[in-house]
Amino acid sequence: MSDPFVVVGGDAAGLSAASKLKREDPDREVVVFEKGNWASYAHCGMPYYVKGEVPVLTDLLSLPPDRIEERGIDLRRGHEVVAVDPDERVVSVERDGETVEQPYGDLLVATGARAATEPVAGADLDGVYTMHGLDSAAALRAALLDPETATVEDLGGGGFVDADAVESHLRADPPETVAVVGGGYVGVEMAEAFAAHDLDVHVFQRGDHLLGPFGEPVAERVEAHLREQGVTLHLGEAVVRLDSDGDDRVAEVVCPDSSLPVDLALVGVGVRPNTDLLDGSGVELGDSGAVAIDEFGRTNRENVYAAGDCAEMPHVVTGEPAWVPLGLTANRAGRAVGQTVAGDPTTLGGVAGTAVLKAFDLECGRSGVTDHDEARTYGFEPVSETVTAGSRSGYYPGNAETTVTLTADRETGRLLGGTIVGADRAAIRIDTVATALEAGMTVAEVERLDLAYAPPFSPVWDPVLVAAKVLNGRL
Amino acid sequence: MSDPFVVVGGDAAGLSAASKLKREDPDREVVVFEKGNWASYAHCGMPYYVKGEVPVLTDLLSLPPDRIEERGIDLRRGHEVVAVDPDERVVSVERDGETVEQPYGDLLVATGARAATEPVAGADLDGVYTMHGLDSAAALRAALLDPETATVEDLGGGGFVDADAVESHLRADPPETVAVVGGGYVGVEMAEAFAAHDLDVHVFQRGDHLLGPFGEPVAERVEAHLREQGVTLHLGEAVVRLDSDGDDRVAEVVCPDSSLPVDLALVGVGVRPNTDLLDGSGVELGDSGAVAIDEFGRTNRENVYAAGDCAEMPHVVTGEPAWVPLGLTANRAGRAVGQTVAGDPTTLGGVAGTAVLKAFDLECGRSGVTDHDEARTYGFEPVSETVTAGSRSGYYPGNAETTVTLTADRETGRLLGGTIVGADRAAIRIDTVATALEAGMTVAEVERLDLAYAPPFSPVWDPVLVAAKVLNGRL
Repeated sequence: MSDPFVVVGGDAAGLSAASKLKREDPDREVVVFEKGNWASYAHCGMPYYVKGEVPVLTDLLSLPPDRIEERGIDLRRGHEVVAVDPDERVVSVERDGETVEQPYGDLLVATGARAATEPVAGADLDGVYTMHGLDSAAALRAALLDPETATVEDLGGGGFVDADAVESHLRADPPETVAVVGGGYVGVEMAEAFAAHDLDVHVFQRGDHLLGPFGEPVAERVEAHLREQGVTLHLGEAVVRLDSDGDDRVAEVVCPDSSLPVDLALVGVGVRPNTDLLDGSGVELGDSGAVAIDEFGRTNRENVYAAGDCAEMPHVVTGEPAWVPLGLTANRAGRAVGQTVAGDPTTLGGVAGTAVLKAFDLECGRSGVTDHDEARTYGFEPVSETVTAGSRSGYYPGNAETTVTLTADRETGRLLGGTIVGADRAAIRIDTVATALEAGMTVAEVERLDLAYAPPFSPVWDPVLVAAKVLNGRL
Repeated sequence: MSDPFVVVGGDAAGLSAASKLKREDPDREVVVFEKGNWASYAHCGMPYYVKGEVPVLTDLLSLPPDRIEERGIDLRRGHEVVAVDPDERVVSVERDGETVEQPYGDLLVATGARAATEPVAGADLDGVYTMHGLDSAAALRAALLDPETATVEDLGGGGFVDADAVESHLRADPPETVAVVGGGYVGVEMAEAFAAHDLDVHVFQRGDHLLGPFGEPVAERVEAHLREQGVTLHLGEAVVRLDSDGDDRVAEVVCPDSSLPVDLALVGVGVRPNTDLLDGSGVELGDSGAVAIDEFGRTNRENVYAAGDCAEMPHVVTGEPAWVPLGLTANRAGRAVGQTVAGDPTTLGGVAGTAVLKAFDLECGRSGVTDHDEARTYGFEPVSETVTAGSRSGYYPGNAETTVTLTADRETGRLLGGTIVGADRAAIRIDTVATALEAGMTVAEVERLDLAYAPPFSPVWDPVLVAAKVLNGRL
């Protein structure tokens, strides 16, 4: 067969596309190149594995390699695609130092994103980790275990991890103090994971608040809650570098006006799209640095698609391309590309930028455009209101204060975005906002939604409705 | 002042209207007539009060009478409006056997609904209760208490209950076996309440399944769960009558082919709109028997409004009037009428028929049109799919099977309704369906929603998305 569907990246987007195409067109050859040893795993579960709540590393596999192959997909792990030539319709693939050329009929670039560490000097020291890939998760959990009793087998990596490499992270002297560099999603989730190991946890955040995209009302509650949990927050403190004490092991976090001795550091300062393989290919990137695609996932070069964390997607509020690397988007976009390549053109849909997060006992959610500066960039005149309302009827046990912020365009009354934080069923309520955004509802329309009410789950006026009512009163 | 705003019924709709008007137009005289001794209380909380989870009866007051009066509302409890004369703009009010006439400028009929008992012979025996009004809730909880230690004061009715009347329900010999007649919302909630008192609970349901409006997939899981909790279900058994054993106290439930000795019975066979006061007034009722109103809550007679459980509302799916007596609708409609009467015409919005319910450890939700016969009545060609999917990532602790049914119109692909049941954050997810219904989304659009994903709260594909994906595949 001369026109295989070649997929670069064996994760959410890539394998969704490969699986969908194989279902729709079983005779088409499908080759998936995966740089690492793992394929189809749950990135978002890694903090809970490090925490110990997910006991075994292979639990995070969505689809083990043998089941991928059962689907008729030619999965080649340990193969790195280093170049793409759309004129010749070939990709260059490296394995064990050798490079071969692989022709394609259609190509999907689903290379995802990588943890950014560039701004942090000393991120290459021993004892400094990122949360990217299951190997790093295994190494980090190894570093937290009691070396008297723990073995690499306890980590449950099956045959997928390099046992010797991981074993080198088991430490005679387990860490007591850990620095989390970066107070975004990963930083907050990892603070919870480290605290579960009874570590003295310090979070360093360059900005004045954690969780930038969730906005201040969420950040302030999360910050108070993390402090209650014993986490030390260093807000407004940019880490200048990580220092060793002479050997190659991290020993100190250095900020402009202070420093802190630490035994271990986790760097979670964001992710970047993996697009190096496209250098010289003529495939265009968007302003975000991720691959620019059309509504079907097509790049500017014929028969070259991109999907998932390496690609942009249209934002449902602004209509403009946005780079929002999240799991559902990647799965859905990959699936749509598979269907399109099978001959049934299918749009990817848009992103609302919906994200939810657990921060110890708090649940956080956000969707849409909530930042006023960003909203103005797109020509909106943003107005926001923040309310705190009960999650249940006031008389019902377990009622918890839920803080909702909604943002709308003053001129049209259209809902632009929202955030939520609370301890009781807060995160999932952001789905109401996400759905309303997709529908282009005004705040007045949101206020009139016939949402659920029963004392154990919601007060008469759901917190989202209360926020809509207050915001609508200001428009 | 000669044109007071007169409100009949001092509950959700009536007091929302009165409060809103007083805020917008503080000089307008507002008189609220309430037949009973209670005003502004949480109907939906009564089962949890009987259960004991809400300790004190007055906890269920949304707004105590003194706070209502602080708002400048002339609340007259113990006053029953028995007739309305729109020609003369007066209502006839009974109190202590005397009737007086009260003129009005604008009138709001917010008389709510009453528990239906008519079809059940013997419903007037001692030991037979309904869940309608806080007096009945107090009486029922009294009947469940240990007479050795309990007093009427323990019930927490403050000065609002007739202590002598309630005291007569304290029994020397507390019940052991209880019949719940009717397997709808109230029946299921009360089964849970009685089970918490260690009673032998029997639920009698005329139809083959509990919870008709939630459909079979929800009913079947609830039925299995109730049985696991020790509740005996008598499905397809219509209660012919409740019998006494000679005195006036209930002693037996009689069905066509069987009978069961009981110590106490709860009749929850639905509610009926309270419209008797409108007989002869010329105010039109709809086909449902509830008051017909326009989008502003106006009846066919000038200056006469209706809102809440006694009135119809337009359904967002069918566009036709529907009678869906629920708390949020009543609050919202009352508030809108108050605003309209204040001179700012405000539409009530529609109802999606969203309802949620706790059944022991299960959460149930429904919204829209889910019954196929009903859908066909409105010209739709209904197609449904039921899926069971996880509430969280499969590897994350607490993941629970969540069953979602979505119904769509085959020709247009439009979502018509949905139901959900599960043990983990299931009920609140119906808000996604309710919002999509209000927006008139197709199932394809629902499938593309950017909903929340994080392992502790939701899998990559929320159960609602999984159902949309499967249903869309059939359209």
